[in-house]
Amino acid sequence: MKPAEGTQQMFAVIFSSKRAETSAEEYKQVADRMIQLASGQKGFLGVESARNPDGSGITVSYWQSLDDIKNWKLHSEHLSAQQQGREKFYSSFKVKICKVERQYEF
Amino acid sequence: MKPAEGTQQMFAVIFSSKRAETSAEEYKQVADRMIQLASGQKGFLGVESARNPDGSGITVSYWQSLDDIKNWKLHSEHLSAQQQGREKFYSSFKVKICKVERQYEF
Repeated sequence: MKPAEGTQQMFAVIFSSKRAETSAEEYKQVADRMIQLASGQKGFLGVESARNPDGSGITVSYWQSLDDIKNWKLHSEHLSAQQQGREKFYSSFKVKICKVERQYEF
Repeated sequence: MKPAEGTQQMFAVIFSSKRAETSAEEYKQVADRMIQLASGQKGFLGVESARNPDGSGITVSYWQSLDDIKNWKLHSEHLSAQQQGREKFYSSFKVKICKVERQYEF
């Protein structure tokens, strides 16, 4: 993960979702493929993800610019995955686009 | 969750952590108490959390202002919990303070 200091800006996409109780194997395949695909996109800085046993989960991806986020959102294979997400993978989700103001770690 | 539109600003604290493999019951008590306590703080807008079976997790809390985030960070009972976090609950964590630029949901 690159630092959000100096001239290096960083943006985060917070994707909060509730999984529908179907298509577990197919979901895993598509989700893994999206991580793989996102990782190769321009401006990608990292991703982290967690899901509770009840199906609620959070994925945060980090990007160099808002344009990089827009380009990823419009990627053809990602658009197809988004459609599957609305049709069968998720019962609900929320997306928040954020500018990282500062960070620290332990 | 209030919208981040018009004059309503919203800030997010992304807390990514790896649990140490100890103090499970005590951790749950402190974590639950921190959610309860945060929910009563000025400017608190919401919180969501998820953890994987391997102990990695993400908690995102939402606030009206950076000052609200700072005040919560300096809350005496929260300071004590943060110390416990570094001493025994987490093997590592990262914190990112973000400004929510826009959001949408399904």
